[in-house]
Amino acid sequence: MNIRIGQGVDFHQLVTGRDLWLGGVLIPHTKGALGHSDADVLLHAICDALLGAAALGDIGKHFPDTSAEFKGIDSKILLKRTAELISAKGYRVGNVDATLCLEAPKIKPYVQQMQQTIAAILNITIDDVSIKATTTEKLGFVGREEGVVAYAVALIQTV
Amino acid sequence: MNIRIGQGVDFHQLVTGRDLWLGGVLIPHTKGALGHSDADVLLHAICDALLGAAALGDIGKHFPDTSAEFKGIDSKILLKRTAELISAKGYRVGNVDATLCLEAPKIKPYVQQMQQTIAAILNITIDDVSIKATTTEKLGFVGREEGVVAYAVALIQTV
Amino acid sequence: MNIRIGQGVDFHQLVTGRDLWLGGVLIPHTKGALGHSDADVLLHAICDALLGAAALGDIGKHFPDTSAEFKGIDSKILLKRTAELISAKGYRVGNVDATLCLEAPKIKPYVQQMQQTIAAILNITIDDVSIKATTTEKLGFVGREEGVVAYAVALIQTV
Repeated sequence: MNIRIGQGVDFHQLVTGRDLWLGGVLIPHTKGALGHSDADVLLHAICDALLGAAALGDIGKHFPDTSAEFKGIDSKILLKRTAELISAKGYRVGNVDATLCLEAPKIKPYVQQMQQTIAAILNITIDDVSIKATTTEKLGFVGREEGVVAYAVALIQTV
Repeated sequence: MNIRIGQGVDFHQLVTGRDLWLGGVLIPHTKGALGHSDADVLLHAICDALLGAAALGDIGKHFPDTSAEFKGIDSKILLKRTAELISAKGYRVGNVDATLCLEAPKIKPYVQQMQQTIAAILNITIDDVSIKATTTEKLGFVGREEGVVAYAVALIQTV
Repeated sequence: MNIRIGQGVDFHQLVTGRDLWLGGVLIPHTKGALGHSDADVLLHAICDALLGAAALGDIGKHFPDTSAEFKGIDSKILLKRTAELISAKGYRVGNVDATLCLEAPKIKPYVQQMQQTIAAILNITIDDVSIKATTTEKLGFVGREEGVVAYAVALIQTV
């Protein structure tokens, strides 16, 4: 059995007039994340952790933010394609763990829905997807509510 | 054998008039970490990495900073409870690795004591706990000594 | 089989009048990374992830930035020594995954060369080394092009 690990980190600005998609779920909030796609920082970090574990490059290589194809795209589609790339290389996902860093809003009410959404796309159980959250205690651009950051790790293994 | 990984990241402000607890050890310093508990950023990141690996939620779920029960609490108690949750779900800890990001003071003299403290709580050997440190080269809120950040990863496996 | 994981994070300022070494490769750019060694933030994060996985301390312990021995040193030498320490403790490297956070320049043209360089030093295949990159979307000191950050994870196992 060949076990590999990967990590991902992603950043997006928070601005008015945009939707806030996190973990594949639309979160009611006064600001949204700016980006070429739907700017789902959590799904992007998870995509990168999975791509990294399989040494498949990064999200920018597969889904360039200069391509019209990915303009405004639902990041669940990017995660789905990532899962297909992992699978095509002979790996299956073991588990995924991630942390969202954001000052507001509280995402706890949406965590289970995020887990279900991600697990379904990756064809794993909800218990193999973990989503955590923290503020940065008012520090930095996250603390000033100017941006959101997500960190993720993933474990994959040969089928 | 089921192997799983987790990650954690935690942030606290550094202020005067507070103690600086890091890795379960009281560090002499001109500033301390602000928080509802003893604000031990390193133990919090390790708790979150372990909880994440086991898909048990996050530290905010188990030890909410709105609860009087956790006001000023020694984070070693939180790590102990985390270890019990991991164990109750049928996992044992493989290894833990973490990095403290802080400009000052140098924590090298305290690293072995931190390792011993954490290893004893998690019922693993000192060689299964790694504590590293780095400055941020004067960059950002850590560089301005306004805050401290800790990153951790953990590997757990079925007993 | 004993499997262990580690993580690393490193920071360097970007300044004029210095070379920009990333992943063992000299990158043409208007700024370079400031540091005691060649300030290769990516190799430093990978060194720390490997040292952490093996509980061997951190890069500051083995290669102190107060030592004349490491003044201006090529970080590939530090990675080579790290690999020797890992090997001497009875471990071999499974895979390494890292993300560079920098606003500019684009490092995509150099990624393969970085992978080859790192794989050769660690005595693993290029497919066991993953290098990813992201901007911070203009946020923070990375967004202002004042600094560069690298995150890495590594998996090692007993030989």
